[in-house]
Amino acid sequence: MEMYSKAETLALRQKHIGPSCKVFFAKDPIKIVRAHGQYMFDENGEKYLDCINNVAHVGHSHPEVVKAAVKQMELLNTNSRFLHDNLVQYAKRLTATLPEKLSVCYFVNSGSEANDLALRLARQYSGHYDVVTLDHAYHGHVTSLIDISPYKFNQLGKEAKKEFVHVAPSPDIYRGKYREDHEDPAGAYADNVRNIIEKAQKNGHKIAAFIAESMQSCGGQIIPPAGYFQKVAQFVHKAGGVFIADEVQVGFGRVGKNFWAFQLQGEDFVPDIVTMGKPIGNGHPMSCVVTTREIAEAFGASGLEYFNTFGGNPVSCAIGLAVLDIIEQEDLQGNATHVGNYLFGLLKEQQEKHSLVGDVRGAGLFIGVDLVKDQIRRTPATAEAQHIIYKLKERKILLSADGPYRNVLKFKPPMCFSMEDAKFVVEQIDELLTDLEEATQIRAKNSLPTNTQSKRKLPTGGSSQLESNNENISPINGTICRHENGFSGESHTVPCKRIRT
Amino acid sequence: MEMYSKAETLALRQKHIGPSCKVFFAKDPIKIVRAHGQYMFDENGEKYLDCINNVAHVGHSHPEVVKAAVKQMELLNTNSRFLHDNLVQYAKRLTATLPEKLSVCYFVNSGSEANDLALRLARQYSGHYDVVTLDHAYHGHVTSLIDISPYKFNQLGKEAKKEFVHVAPSPDIYRGKYREDHEDPAGAYADNVRNIIEKAQKNGHKIAAFIAESMQSCGGQIIPPAGYFQKVAQFVHKAGGVFIADEVQVGFGRVGKNFWAFQLQGEDFVPDIVTMGKPIGNGHPMSCVVTTREIAEAFGASGLEYFNTFGGNPVSCAIGLAVLDIIEQEDLQGNATHVGNYLFGLLKEQQEKHSLVGDVRGAGLFIGVDLVKDQIRRTPATAEAQHIIYKLKERKILLSADGPYRNVLKFKPPMCFSMEDAKFVVEQIDELLTDLEEATQIRAKNSLPTNTQSKRKLPTGGSSQLESNNENISPINGTICRHENGFSGESHTVPCKRIRT
Repeated sequence: MEMYSKAETLALRQKHIGPSCKVFFAKDPIKIVRAHGQYMFDENGEKYLDCINNVAHVGHSHPEVVKAAVKQMELLNTNSRFLHDNLVQYAKRLTATLPEKLSVCYFVNSGSEANDLALRLARQYSGHYDVVTLDHAYHGHVTSLIDISPYKFNQLGKEAKKEFVHVAPSPDIYRGKYREDHEDPAGAYADNVRNIIEKAQKNGHKIAAFIAESMQSCGGQIIPPAGYFQKVAQFVHKAGGVFIADEVQVGFGRVGKNFWAFQLQGEDFVPDIVTMGKPIGNGHPMSCVVTTREIAEAFGASGLEYFNTFGGNPVSCAIGLAVLDIIEQEDLQGNATHVGNYLFGLLKEQQEKHSLVGDVRGAGLFIGVDLVKDQIRRTPATAEAQHIIYKLKERKILLSADGPYRNVLKFKPPMCFSMEDAKFVVEQIDELLTDLEEATQIRAKNSLPTNTQSKRKLPTGGSSQLESNNENISPINGTICRHENGFSGESHTVPCKRIRT
Repeated sequence: MEMYSKAETLALRQKHIGPSCKVFFAKDPIKIVRAHGQYMFDENGEKYLDCINNVAHVGHSHPEVVKAAVKQMELLNTNSRFLHDNLVQYAKRLTATLPEKLSVCYFVNSGSEANDLALRLARQYSGHYDVVTLDHAYHGHVTSLIDISPYKFNQLGKEAKKEFVHVAPSPDIYRGKYREDHEDPAGAYADNVRNIIEKAQKNGHKIAAFIAESMQSCGGQIIPPAGYFQKVAQFVHKAGGVFIADEVQVGFGRVGKNFWAFQLQGEDFVPDIVTMGKPIGNGHPMSCVVTTREIAEAFGASGLEYFNTFGGNPVSCAIGLAVLDIIEQEDLQGNATHVGNYLFGLLKEQQEKHSLVGDVRGAGLFIGVDLVKDQIRRTPATAEAQHIIYKLKERKILLSADGPYRNVLKFKPPMCFSMEDAKFVVEQIDELLTDLEEATQIRAKNSLPTNTQSKRKLPTGGSSQLESNNENISPINGTICRHENGFSGESHTVPCKRIRT
């Protein structure tokens, strides 16, 4: 099956692929040759449990997706300047999953193209230019989106923030300004947005849009408190702007209870624009922007045609339709609720058991485990998170850590993830946390020789060694002292922030 | 095979697809249900000869492309953070088609993503921001590219041009400032670029890049005179910027003689960045940026990871490899030369015969026929071009007209286009031109009643009726008087500008 040995593949990659394109586990990357369901297999046939691939939404290499693709590829694959039933049928099916006013689609090829187009729609509709974005947000890799992604531009120095970009605090009730003990964190965070808008307006700025992932993914698996989006939408509308819900990472039933993550905010909330991406085609390059008739008409009124060469082609639409069918037929939304709740419960038990687990939060099969060195100060346990990720890889489990401190274990597996998978991965994490806590305590007492062969050895230089084990690397704001014993010893009293699904 | 009647498809499209997304032949769009080779079939089984789909490069629904896609889809489709042989093998094969220094690839999903990334590379490498672009250029639909596409931003009013954008004249030796009778049009157009750069620098601007399609497509099938790119590259390099060759429309052997259209400029010319798109995957959403090690390293030095979720996935790479194989195995580059030369010759005969044909230019299977109302003044025959396109559609031939005056018939068919196809389409054009010329003369003499049933009737309101029959609609600078007989009567003396392939 292999054309090259792993070493040759790596050498060719170093020669011909841009060095900015990182591999997982840079020191010892994985070569994957096949996958099915929630499992991936390397060149030696070793099986990995995939806890991170939200793109392979209905499971890797799903036969029904392949069948739909082949059937259409054999017939026709052309652009949307010709009429085709797949395009309109898919638009009809997709909009049927959304609130009624979200009825007009633009088919594009990636989450980045979708978010860029959302900005164009917002700017044309509002006649304004400025954007309010959340801290730690990531919305894509094209120029216009790097500009509104603090996750990215913060790495380029303080001057990288453009004047038209206004950064609101992430509505993080574990680590942010207003926490779980605040009486109205949704209102408080929304008031921040209002203040930011008012300040911008005083300086002559005009707001085109507020954009946020319905749940922040790279930003650290942040679940905005319910009611936050409603209030923000009020303020943004008052300023003449629109609300863009970025569902690129979290849409298509992942949250279990609802098909779209923004719906967790309540039935009274409807964004003006929704962008989709990763899971939409189970890996096929496609994505979509859905908006209101009013915004679409305003965009059309400029007279400028919008043409996307590959967007909405019959093959992409056939695949999109197959994905919707499979989610329904295999009740993957139900599975996300069922297995997600189970996994969440198991992780909450870990929180009870291990001081390193500061917070467990999530909805359906989108869960974050926030590791801390100190339950009171909530000092991010970055090196420990990276250590766990690395050790899990040795145990053939693929998990990642993200967030501004890279300390949040990030679950977003294919939606066919099973109870057994959940049990297995948490058992492994339990063992690793136990080892790590013991090793840390031993080390704190200086009773462990630095050259010990013990598998309980703390990660040395773990952070730099493992830094490629992240979708995107954020700078670490806090200084992490690896010789410090971060345990507070006190049991945590953080309330469960699981959204009931 | 149909889910909906054509009327239902159209109604659903109007309901659910953004009104900015246009169809071909808006008054009576075509519903296509299958295609193979250079032929497309509508819902009634009517066969259309496709002269415009440069995306279906190796032929619609090519079985070897489908086979490669299925084989890989059944195995694995995941992101490029895992090692995979397809990625490196494809990068190796693709860079082997390019001059040696172009050795580093970034795989993305569309021509727009490719050109946006090219700008990011150029800006990071140069530390500059400004861009020199050609008049009438179109480089893509994302925000950053609308900004550098006069074809688009000119439609938004004079203020739409950003300060960092500098527009150089298109090196059009038929209709531009320096024409076929100029002793050194390449040098003269390049000097324009130098002057623009120097003026910008005097005003404190710093040039990051010069970007141009190797041959302008939407801009009117413009073939830059050989030597132009070399000189421009000197001036851009002197200013600290880079040369980006946009091969999204014209690459992959279409020009016959060479695999890349920039190579027509001469072996001594090598761009710093090449972007690819449309034909690369025969319709599969994929594309690529190739650059030098030096630029790639500079981009990497920012520390910012570049991650593209779908870019370079094993399925896209398998398809890309299949397309390269087919081009080679079926000698499509040879066919582009062979059939392209034949088609060009036939069209030159039309130029001898018909006063409406002002210019025929092209290379391989990329040919433009510039229609004029007046051979001396070269007044664009816009309505006539639209009429011909519409009449060809009735004869089941798909052709389009583009350029700033929408008067250039644009040939860019699948590369399997045959001698018979060429003969057939030119015969039809000959008939239509004859009809049109006769009708125009008759009408000029006021001898034809306006309500005549004659098929020789001039298009009435043709321009607005047919305006969707274009990839993108540009404003028409010249006023077109439909009652004027534009014939000069003189035979043209325009030298043949066919690039020998």
